[in-house]
Amino acid sequence: MPSSTDLPFLSALKWNDEGLIPAIVQDAENGDVLMMAWMDEPALRDTVATGQTHFFSRSRRSHWHKGATSGHVQYVESIWLDCDGDVVLIKARQIGGACHEGYRSCFFRRVGEAGRLDHSSEPVFDASKVYGSSGGAGPDSRATSCEPGATG
Amino acid sequence: MPSSTDLPFLSALKWNDEGLIPAIVQDAENGDVLMMAWMDEPALRDTVATGQTHFFSRSRRSHWHKGATSGHVQYVESIWLDCDGDVVLIKARQIGGACHEGYRSCFFRRVGEAGRLDHSSEPVFDASKVYGSSGGAGPDSRATSCEPGATG
Repeated sequence: MPSSTDLPFLSALKWNDEGLIPAIVQDAENGDVLMMAWMDEPALRDTVATGQTHFFSRSRRSHWHKGATSGHVQYVESIWLDCDGDVVLIKARQIGGACHEGYRSCFFRRVGEAGRLDHSSEPVFDASKVYGSSGGAGPDSRATSCEPGATG
Repeated sequence: MPSSTDLPFLSALKWNDEGLIPAIVQDAENGDVLMMAWMDEPALRDTVATGQTHFFSRSRRSHWHKGATSGHVQYVESIWLDCDGDVVLIKARQIGGACHEGYRSCFFRRVGEAGRLDHSSEPVFDASKVYGSSGGAGPDSRATSCEPGATG
């Protein structure tokens, strides 16, 4: 891998002990926070090189191109770093929905009255149709995380 | 500490191995992502109970009430969970600026042309005046993270 001289901003990043950094994805159109996932340096480099988000799945220990299965890719509009360089913010144009459960944003559950959890959004696509024939990961594994390849 | 029966949404959360969860804070007024920090369960409970954000500093192993030093508190408007319950999103009304370097948002650096890092915002307060007389943490420790108590 080339040194960070080709992408100077990489030298400002602080990766955690696993070599990962949290990446927040924000809808460039309406400002909604869509999801948070993790990137390693290759995933961040792929994100810069392709203009579409790539992540690292901690549960599968593998790379993941968001939208590879579903077509629900995220086109990167800008990348931002926080003050201490340990979080990345990506403003992106989301195709379809970010969430493997069919919602536009993964943050579709709101803490309501008396600390109860309410669903505050409607799905924008049928997750069983989009991911149902992708093979490999079954419904149970998909239900545990927005990270797996099946989320793509 | 009471069980999660008093705050049912807590049972939907997945804490990491350190008992922490990432908390994204979003400006309820304009949708800007202000910062990301970490909460343990007591910090989240304090956030719910007081209506102001509280965090857990991983570097200091201690709780931190955002705004305790600076007055730049965050008034919670709503709390959201992501699909797999391992990230919290807080929409809040930010007093002053979220960032210990004087910016409204911690994400004031944008990746620009050729991967260089540009400052894309102007500070909204003078960090040296706000934090300069807080004692304890010197400028060096403050410069390393938005997490420390000096950030408050």
